[in-house]
Amino acid sequence: MYAISIWPRGLAINAVAAEMLQAGGSSLDAVEAALRVSEDDISDMSTGRGARPNAAGEIELDAAIMHAPTCTAGAVGALHRTRYAISVARRVMEVTPHLLLAGDGAVAFARAQGFPEFDLSTEASQESWQAWKAAQTAITGHDTMGIIAIDQRGELAVGVTTSGSPFKLPGRVGDSPILGAGLYADQNVGGAVATGVGEEAMRVCATFLVVELMRHGTAPEAACRETLERLLLVNPEARRKQLALAALRVDGAHGGACLQAGFAYPYFNGQTNRLIDVIPLVAPAEG
Amino acid sequence: MYAISIWPRGLAINAVAAEMLQAGGSSLDAVEAALRVSEDDISDMSTGRGARPNAAGEIELDAAIMHAPTCTAGAVGALHRTRYAISVARRVMEVTPHLLLAGDGAVAFARAQGFPEFDLSTEASQESWQAWKAAQTAITGHDTMGIIAIDQRGELAVGVTTSGSPFKLPGRVGDSPILGAGLYADQNVGGAVATGVGEEAMRVCATFLVVELMRHGTAPEAACRETLERLLLVNPEARRKQLALAALRVDGAHGGACLQAGFAYPYFNGQTNRLIDVIPLVAPAEG
Repeated sequence: MYAISIWPRGLAINAVAAEMLQAGGSSLDAVEAALRVSEDDISDMSTGRGARPNAAGEIELDAAIMHAPTCTAGAVGALHRTRYAISVARRVMEVTPHLLLAGDGAVAFARAQGFPEFDLSTEASQESWQAWKAAQTAITGHDTMGIIAIDQRGELAVGVTTSGSPFKLPGRVGDSPILGAGLYADQNVGGAVATGVGEEAMRVCATFLVVELMRHGTAPEAACRETLERLLLVNPEARRKQLALAALRVDGAHGGACLQAGFAYPYFNGQTNRLIDVIPLVAPAEG
Repeated sequence: MYAISIWPRGLAINAVAAEMLQAGGSSLDAVEAALRVSEDDISDMSTGRGARPNAAGEIELDAAIMHAPTCTAGAVGALHRTRYAISVARRVMEVTPHLLLAGDGAVAFARAQGFPEFDLSTEASQESWQAWKAAQTAITGHDTMGIIAIDQRGELAVGVTTSGSPFKLPGRVGDSPILGAGLYADQNVGGAVATGVGEEAMRVCATFLVVELMRHGTAPEAACRETLERLLLVNPEARRKQLALAALRVDGAHGGACLQAGFAYPYFNGQTNRLIDVIPLVAPAEG
C-alpha cells in the first residue's frame, strides 16, 4: 500500500489517496478521487477549475488514468467546458475501445456519458489570460498533478490531470494524456509520472523509459535521472526547461529527478505521508 | 541512403521517397512527399482523401513527422476537412513549440497556415460509412501508411499518416500522432513505425520500445518481435488483433514483425526497392 504524488501541494492530494487505500479502496478509485480534489481546487491554476486558459482564453484540459494489472487506460486531450477530466478519462477506459479522445469529440463523449457543460473559468483564471494577452510574455510553471497508487491487493494505478502549458495553442495536447509520456505503469515493475514542459517528456517517452529502466534493475531515482540525461542528450535545449519525474516500484521503492530546482514529491509508505525533496540535475546558474 | 515503408501498397510510396533521396533530397522532404502521395490516393481508404469516416460520417486524420537529428516532431490528431495532414504536422513541428495539436485546434492551425477547407470524402468513402451504419459491423484493416528514410547526409526522418480505425468515435486519437507509439526515431540508433490497431501500439509504446531494444544491440527484426511479445504478455487479447512493426537501423539493417498474416514492408537499400514478407507471430487458426 503506497502512493506517490508530485509537487509540494501534492501532499494533500496524496493524503486523499492514502486515506482511501487505508480504508481498502482500489488504487484506481484512489487515483481518480485524489485528482478530482486537485481539479476542484480553484487556488491551483494548473488543473481543472480555475486553470490558466489557452491562447484563445479557453481552459482546455488533458487527463489520463492507467490500470496496470489489465494494461488498460483512458485519456482525454484538449477537453473544454467539462468538470472532472480525470473521470471522463476513466470513462474512456471503461466504455470505449479507444485510449484517447481529444477536442470536440472528447466533449461530445463527456456529454453522452452524463458530464454536463460546466464553466471552468474563475475571476483569477480570466485575469491571468488578460494579463498574458496584454504582455504576451511566456509564463512558466506547468504543475500537472499526478499520482501513482498501489492498493492493499497490490494493484497499481496511475493518473495525471492538467490544463497544460499556460496560453498554449488551442488543441495542443501535451504529455499528460499520452501513455509513456505523462504516465505509465506496468504491474510487474512500477509506475512513473511526469510534470513540467510536456513536449520534453513526449520527446523521450519519459515515463515509459523510467519503467523500462526499472524493469532492468535500475533503482527508481537513478531511472528518473537517466531519463532526464537522455533528454539532455537528444535535446540540449531542455536544460533551460523544467521536466520532473517521480517513480514508484511495486515493492514501494521510490525516487524522483528534475531538471530545475523546486520539485519535490509526497510519498505515502502505508503509514505516513511525507514530502521528499529532489536535487535538480541542472545547476541554477549557467554562466 | 535507405527507406522503409509498410504494406504491399507502400512499394509505390517508398519509390517516391527513394527517387527523392537519390536526387539528393532530405529525408524529411522525402517522407513528407511520399506520404502526400498516399494521402491523395483515393483508392486507398486508410489515409487522406477518400478514407473511411468516423462513426459520425466525418473523415478524421492523424499524422506525424519526426526529425531524428534534432529530436523534433510535429503531429496532428483528429484533423478534419483538411488536405495533407502530414504537411500540417510538419508545420506544427516548424512553427510551434508544441508537438501535437488535435481536433478543432488543429483545424484552426491548419487554416492559419494556409491550408484551405477541403472535402476529403469520396463516393466510396461515404458508401463505406452508409454500409457500416446499416450493418454496425466492425471493419478491420487499419492500413496506416508510414515511412522511415535516411538521406545521403545520413539524416533520419520518419512519418506516418492515417484516418485511424474505421468508424471510430469522433475525436479518437490513435497511435500515429504519438511519438513512441506510431513512430519514433533516434539519430544514433534508427527508427520504427507501427500499423494495425493503434491502441495496441500505444499500450506498450511500441516504436519507442523497438528503438530502445535496437539501442542495446537487438537486431531490428528481433526488436520488433520482442515488442509484440511484450504486448501479448501485458494484453493477451491482442492476439486477436493486428499490430505490425517495421524498423530501420541507421546502418541500413531492417526488420519487421506482425501479429497476423498479410503484412510486408518495402525496403529501399539505396539501389533497389523490394517487398519483404513478414511471418506472423500468431498462428492463423487458434482452435
